[in-house]
Amino acid sequence: MSDLSSKTLWAGRYEVSAAEAVRRLNDSYPFDQRMYASDITCSIAYAGALSKAGIITEAERDAIASGLEQVRAEFENGTFQPAAGDEDIHTAVERRLTELIGAPAGKLHTGRSRNDQVATDTRHWQGQTIGRIITLTLDLQRALLAQAKLHTDTLMPGYTHLRAAQPVTAGHWFMSYFWMLTRDVSRWKATREATLISPLGSGALAGTPYPIDRQQLAEAMGFSRPTMNSLDGVSDRDFIAGFLYVASLMMTHLSRFAEDVILFSSGGFGFLKLDERYTTGSSLMPQKQNPDVLELTRGKTGRIAGHLSGLLNTLKGLPTGYNKDLQEDKEPLFDAADSLEILIPALIGTVETLTVIPEKMRAALDEGMLATDLADYLVGKGIPFREAHGLVGRAVRRSLETGVALSALSLEDYRALSPAFEADLYRVFDFAESVAKRAAFGGTSPDSVRMQIALAEEWLATNA
Amino acid sequence: MSDLSSKTLWAGRYEVSAAEAVRRLNDSYPFDQRMYASDITCSIAYAGALSKAGIITEAERDAIASGLEQVRAEFENGTFQPAAGDEDIHTAVERRLTELIGAPAGKLHTGRSRNDQVATDTRHWQGQTIGRIITLTLDLQRALLAQAKLHTDTLMPGYTHLRAAQPVTAGHWFMSYFWMLTRDVSRWKATREATLISPLGSGALAGTPYPIDRQQLAEAMGFSRPTMNSLDGVSDRDFIAGFLYVASLMMTHLSRFAEDVILFSSGGFGFLKLDERYTTGSSLMPQKQNPDVLELTRGKTGRIAGHLSGLLNTLKGLPTGYNKDLQEDKEPLFDAADSLEILIPALIGTVETLTVIPEKMRAALDEGMLATDLADYLVGKGIPFREAHGLVGRAVRRSLETGVALSALSLEDYRALSPAFEADLYRVFDFAESVAKRAAFGGTSPDSVRMQIALAEEWLATNA
Amino acid sequence: MSDLSSKTLWAGRYEVSAAEAVRRLNDSYPFDQRMYASDITCSIAYAGALSKAGIITEAERDAIASGLEQVRAEFENGTFQPAAGDEDIHTAVERRLTELIGAPAGKLHTGRSRNDQVATDTRHWQGQTIGRIITLTLDLQRALLAQAKLHTDTLMPGYTHLRAAQPVTAGHWFMSYFWMLTRDVSRWKATREATLISPLGSGALAGTPYPIDRQQLAEAMGFSRPTMNSLDGVSDRDFIAGFLYVASLMMTHLSRFAEDVILFSSGGFGFLKLDERYTTGSSLMPQKQNPDVLELTRGKTGRIAGHLSGLLNTLKGLPTGYNKDLQEDKEPLFDAADSLEILIPALIGTVETLTVIPEKMRAALDEGMLATDLADYLVGKGIPFREAHGLVGRAVRRSLETGVALSALSLEDYRALSPAFEADLYRVFDFAESVAKRAAFGGTSPDSVRMQIALAEEWLATNA
Amino acid sequence: MSDLSSKTLWAGRYEVSAAEAVRRLNDSYPFDQRMYASDITCSIAYAGALSKAGIITEAERDAIASGLEQVRAEFENGTFQPAAGDEDIHTAVERRLTELIGAPAGKLHTGRSRNDQVATDTRHWQGQTIGRIITLTLDLQRALLAQAKLHTDTLMPGYTHLRAAQPVTAGHWFMSYFWMLTRDVSRWKATREATLISPLGSGALAGTPYPIDRQQLAEAMGFSRPTMNSLDGVSDRDFIAGFLYVASLMMTHLSRFAEDVILFSSGGFGFLKLDERYTTGSSLMPQKQNPDVLELTRGKTGRIAGHLSGLLNTLKGLPTGYNKDLQEDKEPLFDAADSLEILIPALIGTVETLTVIPEKMRAALDEGMLATDLADYLVGKGIPFREAHGLVGRAVRRSLETGVALSALSLEDYRALSPAFEADLYRVFDFAESVAKRAAFGGTSPDSVRMQIALAEEWLATNA
Repeated sequence: MSDLSSKTLWAGRYEVSAAEAVRRLNDSYPFDQRMYASDITCSIAYAGALSKAGIITEAERDAIASGLEQVRAEFENGTFQPAAGDEDIHTAVERRLTELIGAPAGKLHTGRSRNDQVATDTRHWQGQTIGRIITLTLDLQRALLAQAKLHTDTLMPGYTHLRAAQPVTAGHWFMSYFWMLTRDVSRWKATREATLISPLGSGALAGTPYPIDRQQLAEAMGFSRPTMNSLDGVSDRDFIAGFLYVASLMMTHLSRFAEDVILFSSGGFGFLKLDERYTTGSSLMPQKQNPDVLELTRGKTGRIAGHLSGLLNTLKGLPTGYNKDLQEDKEPLFDAADSLEILIPALIGTVETLTVIPEKMRAALDEGMLATDLADYLVGKGIPFREAHGLVGRAVRRSLETGVALSALSLEDYRALSPAFEADLYRVFDFAESVAKRAAFGGTSPDSVRMQIALAEEWLATNA
Repeated sequence: MSDLSSKTLWAGRYEVSAAEAVRRLNDSYPFDQRMYASDITCSIAYAGALSKAGIITEAERDAIASGLEQVRAEFENGTFQPAAGDEDIHTAVERRLTELIGAPAGKLHTGRSRNDQVATDTRHWQGQTIGRIITLTLDLQRALLAQAKLHTDTLMPGYTHLRAAQPVTAGHWFMSYFWMLTRDVSRWKATREATLISPLGSGALAGTPYPIDRQQLAEAMGFSRPTMNSLDGVSDRDFIAGFLYVASLMMTHLSRFAEDVILFSSGGFGFLKLDERYTTGSSLMPQKQNPDVLELTRGKTGRIAGHLSGLLNTLKGLPTGYNKDLQEDKEPLFDAADSLEILIPALIGTVETLTVIPEKMRAALDEGMLATDLADYLVGKGIPFREAHGLVGRAVRRSLETGVALSALSLEDYRALSPAFEADLYRVFDFAESVAKRAAFGGTSPDSVRMQIALAEEWLATNA
Repeated sequence: MSDLSSKTLWAGRYEVSAAEAVRRLNDSYPFDQRMYASDITCSIAYAGALSKAGIITEAERDAIASGLEQVRAEFENGTFQPAAGDEDIHTAVERRLTELIGAPAGKLHTGRSRNDQVATDTRHWQGQTIGRIITLTLDLQRALLAQAKLHTDTLMPGYTHLRAAQPVTAGHWFMSYFWMLTRDVSRWKATREATLISPLGSGALAGTPYPIDRQQLAEAMGFSRPTMNSLDGVSDRDFIAGFLYVASLMMTHLSRFAEDVILFSSGGFGFLKLDERYTTGSSLMPQKQNPDVLELTRGKTGRIAGHLSGLLNTLKGLPTGYNKDLQEDKEPLFDAADSLEILIPALIGTVETLTVIPEKMRAALDEGMLATDLADYLVGKGIPFREAHGLVGRAVRRSLETGVALSALSLEDYRALSPAFEADLYRVFDFAESVAKRAAFGGTSPDSVRMQIALAEEWLATNA
Repeated sequence: MSDLSSKTLWAGRYEVSAAEAVRRLNDSYPFDQRMYASDITCSIAYAGALSKAGIITEAERDAIASGLEQVRAEFENGTFQPAAGDEDIHTAVERRLTELIGAPAGKLHTGRSRNDQVATDTRHWQGQTIGRIITLTLDLQRALLAQAKLHTDTLMPGYTHLRAAQPVTAGHWFMSYFWMLTRDVSRWKATREATLISPLGSGALAGTPYPIDRQQLAEAMGFSRPTMNSLDGVSDRDFIAGFLYVASLMMTHLSRFAEDVILFSSGGFGFLKLDERYTTGSSLMPQKQNPDVLELTRGKTGRIAGHLSGLLNTLKGLPTGYNKDLQEDKEPLFDAADSLEILIPALIGTVETLTVIPEKMRAALDEGMLATDLADYLVGKGIPFREAHGLVGRAVRRSLETGVALSALSLEDYRALSPAFEADLYRVFDFAESVAKRAAFGGTSPDSVRMQIALAEEWLATNA
């Protein structure tokens, strides 16, 4: 056997800083203190369970509960003082409780381990946080819906490949984001449900030897049921991966909205105008309104997706039971939650104050966008779709070559392509009409958008 | 205006290879041909919808349907011949259908765009694939469950930080993976449900001008309902992100199982023996059974998580409507699906043929793992938990210093630490007893594991 | 001991498919066959080393070499026939060599393991591939440079936050991408250098007991030197991570270029026109040129970054020595290489045939973009920069409020803001002049761009 | 035109919180204040450049420099007071400088933009930080080297697939990590070199109109040269991606080391003993030393790789010039740097105090690990390698079936397999001899390890 430390010159060199490094590595209080309320709520419930199981008296339970409420109050009014040994929020709360109530505090952890306690508190905190994010998301949807209502009939170019393809209504465009967010809300709700399952009573890994009623305990904390297996219970972080996934996917939706609004409010398009409260100008160029909120929305999409990618890496290949690697779960979770809780309000304000400029949208429409309608016209005259496509393509090419607008090509020109063209073909050249025809469920016609709005309101009523 | 190509020496240099590069970039047939069955099924349904809407005749519908069935047969018996212009599976099927039935084929695409068709086919394919993955996962769970049943009473060390912490039962360890997989099955089902929503009828972006009954059409393809907004419908890839997420998280579970089995079957532990059908030896070292299946399980976890990370990057910041970037959705999806469909059967075989070696597990237990039980003993004598902890810690330290086992320390030694120790303390030194005490819901006791098994069978009956 | 397989009903159920699954999991021939040339080249060098070390005769060495050249020829003319047991390219080549030359083939692997062989072949293949990618990248840079030369004096808006900020020259914009790619080329070269270090002679993990001259062997394969430690040598995949990183970062540059060109060629901007050979139209809308190549460039950025993320996950936490997880290194590498080798030629063609439309660029300039010049004018008159900023901001605001262009505001208006304004202020309103003033190194002035071009040509001459 | 905000009931509801959200989104002071020293150093250099260019007087330059040094002192002694409008460190420093020296402060930003300033400061900070990380890495290498020196002759099992494969020396195992880190140091140095290139003088995007000598300015800040193109200069974040990549790859190395040490110090192996200063026990189980430092090393690997993945996502598809998305570059950079600066000292301490237990390593060797040596013995007798392999495999199988150790099988048994076996075959069964034979460059023999150590010391002397 050999211990290098006694044999080398530099053995002592890092002694202090290494020790300090170890302490700081293990010190999660700076970031997990935010879970104080969840820790206290779950501990009060646990004291109740211990009392029901006859492990502590009702008096002890009450002492613990009122002591913990006092600790909560100290956090809330900012008077809580962390002490040197408080390596995490759980230690800090227990230490303070002991100072406040003495002996009974030492009984609170009977049958409970740091492993099941941390997992329970984090789930509790996450459940609450999802609730707030859902509320914000619903408000963002309301803002989009209000814009859609104002613009059910406003015409704008619809794009594929960022090339104008067919006319749509601005209301339809707003609603496309509304519906994306409905999926996010569903995912948030499913994730919250999967979160609110209680590992408490799993002990360090093997379960509790005390006759705790885990179902009752779960319900007392607002959870639906206990976890099924203690080994799994203490090391399961699926719920955090779920949070980061739902956040990441919601961010891709918001990033697409941000991209659209940055583009559409740029000089090139000019369809939208951002309120200056949601942009940043400079003393030098007050006219240059930078869409910082939207750019940060787009930029933070990477950050949050990176957290998901990172957590999946951290979880990969961990052996059975709790491993300290799992301490790396909380900072990405907190950062993702903070990002959403600050971004969404800014986006709500951005949408609410967004000005649509119908004239600019209208000016960007051109007849080439009605080629599909012209093909559909031929289909109506009995021409098979593929053939109709080819005929219209030739008309468009003729228009491009001659510089004569599609609507200005003569009937003879059209009939030279196909006798199926008749005088009524010119009715096709009406953007509003084109849009009105897309009236099937989910289409861009004003009527269809109004139906989307009605369904959206119903959805909001059900989901709020 | 200036066109560089006419002015430079090398303008022609890449002409051929660049053109070839462009062709290959746009050519998705090599990978999307696997969706032929979904393309055909959905097209038959669409022909039905066109006929119901009065756009094609019933005869045309029938010609299309029987032509498509013939194309399907050609794929299935391996006689389908792709042609030069078949840039994707959809073109290939349509081209062949035209060869087979002529004119009516040209009507099949009335009101349908490549954009809504691709999205619909991919959803259909994914829905089918998830079904197969669920079936495989359930079989993997059955294999774990069967092992758990054999080992409800087999003692083994339970680990935290890869250090033996408390005795558990091998059945409990097997069940911990069973329960992880129940969450995966739930996620697969939710993802399938979110997948089977039909974008057909969204056209290129603006919806269809034809009176298609999208609800009926959705149901004819086995989907639950149509999408709500055509702009969203053609560019929504949430369902693929969902697939990759569920696959990634399931892989982290499988990677943890793989890590455990690799460790536990290694020389250092020796708890498990892998069947040689699921390992790889060499002509030189037949005794050295390499756990390739498990290592690849662990290794492929990164690959699939990488696909998720990649897709989220691809989706970030895309402007409204369909963008060609979305063609990058399919290869990661297919690769993730293939990986699971090949890995899970190999894992089922691995688990089914795994030999547990109880003597080795038992030999790895030591009395230090009963420290918690000793503390619980003191709690039973009325000592607060925290104080009991400290007292037992002192006993353990004494045992380490003196080299005398915990169970061999004298009663006086114990009573010197605390008068709460009494002669019955020695009953604590019984691993089976320790395990039996963890009898609360989800604990490691044989009874608790038997209850887990009963609940698992119920779950399987409900979910199969 | 218990073996589940003999006790359960379904034990046999997966027998076939599980066995087949295992075989397919271990079968890397479908993807690693592309390394045949590297495998053969490195084996010939190894035979040389064995002969120099006196392990095989010169006659055996020659038989091996000519046999291997025959195998290479079979691959190259497409006549190589894989056999059932060829689980990877190395087995296939060895098996075929044995068929061709008999006994001496069995000596080729003396002291060589699959572990060091695979690592060596992959490095060799990667080194060659990087060479090809560098050549393509240099050609892409030449195309950008040629465009820059044509547009040293072409004015266009320069953007920050996608808002027009200051006038720049189109040549400057093209050169910004040229310089990004110089960094990529440097990274490719550094990665190639780090790749071409030979693990051959590391054996399975412990090194070779034969007196191979590893330095000489390395050089015979075109490598610079042998690796330093056999344990590290067989499991080091830094070089593949390096490839994926450099590819990922290069793709972010190409994705930014793609984004710019998609935007600038869209209806909203109209600054650029893509050649139709590098876009995709439709029979219906021939005027709608979709920038598929650029969209796929942007989309594949995620795919390749996903591979990097995946590999880092796969590498995380692997224990010492070779682990089968490392087989997951090759498919992402090959896919990234293929993506670049197909994308870059398409981009070269895109750039070479890109048409710049100076009138549209010019038309997008407005006087607000000269605010900085106006502030610099005041600085020239002795006003501190921050104060000048504020004064110009007030002028801009006045212009916005009154609807009078900055250049049309009267001298009195200006002098009311500050007496530092004099009649020569109106000289500021000249976009070409504004650009010409940015003449410091790296600035946008035509002279500065010409200097960039000269330096770029020098760089190309040095790096080609 | 329509502005929703005046028309809806809830328009005002988020007014305050949305405004607050916008403020907080734009507020980078909380995290970028750490760059104060770089901001000040670069500003002093810039004042020098302005003075040399005749834009400010030498007196103004000196006032600025001494004012900035006073600000630096305030930061260093903790008296710096941020003010309400300090949205980032640059604003804060400028605001304070103005308070201290008045008017000349307003001239410091002549020709400088926030865009080039931020990029310059971040590069400066990163360059300094890489220097510190290199120093730490070299010390970690010294600790590994010292352990290797103590164990050049200590035998241990070498693993592939986590199965004992061949004997190696512990020194060889330690050195495998030493050499991995040499690659990391090389990458850090290359990244530092690529970092220390100065964008200052790029202005907001178009370059500076002032006759700044950018080369001289670059050198005054400790950079090697100016960037080549202002558009590129303000939006290039390759250097940060480079930092995150090098950090991620270094972490995969450290994660592998952590995995090895966690395994080898576990009960299953027992090869290593961690000093209790670098583990965490509990009051209850003082004997259970949890390897928290190593687990966190492994866990943080995901976190940092996630930052890389996130940044690549953020950079994807950004349009030309500076975009606010780029503000998302700093937090991952800072977090990765902090993680390394805290982890490496803890790892140095861990390695320095690690105890190797040679008896346990020796006890884990078994004769099966000499199969390769036995095959090499036959090769020495003229048997081709592949045939030798097969013969030894049969011997091993015989040993397994009969339960007779390889070294106890009779000479007749061996000769029954092949007459090439002679009495000297038993000399193969010597682990030390087996190791000694791997004497080629990079092999595991004590001599080879001593040569590695000599080369390592040379490398350290060159790179320190």
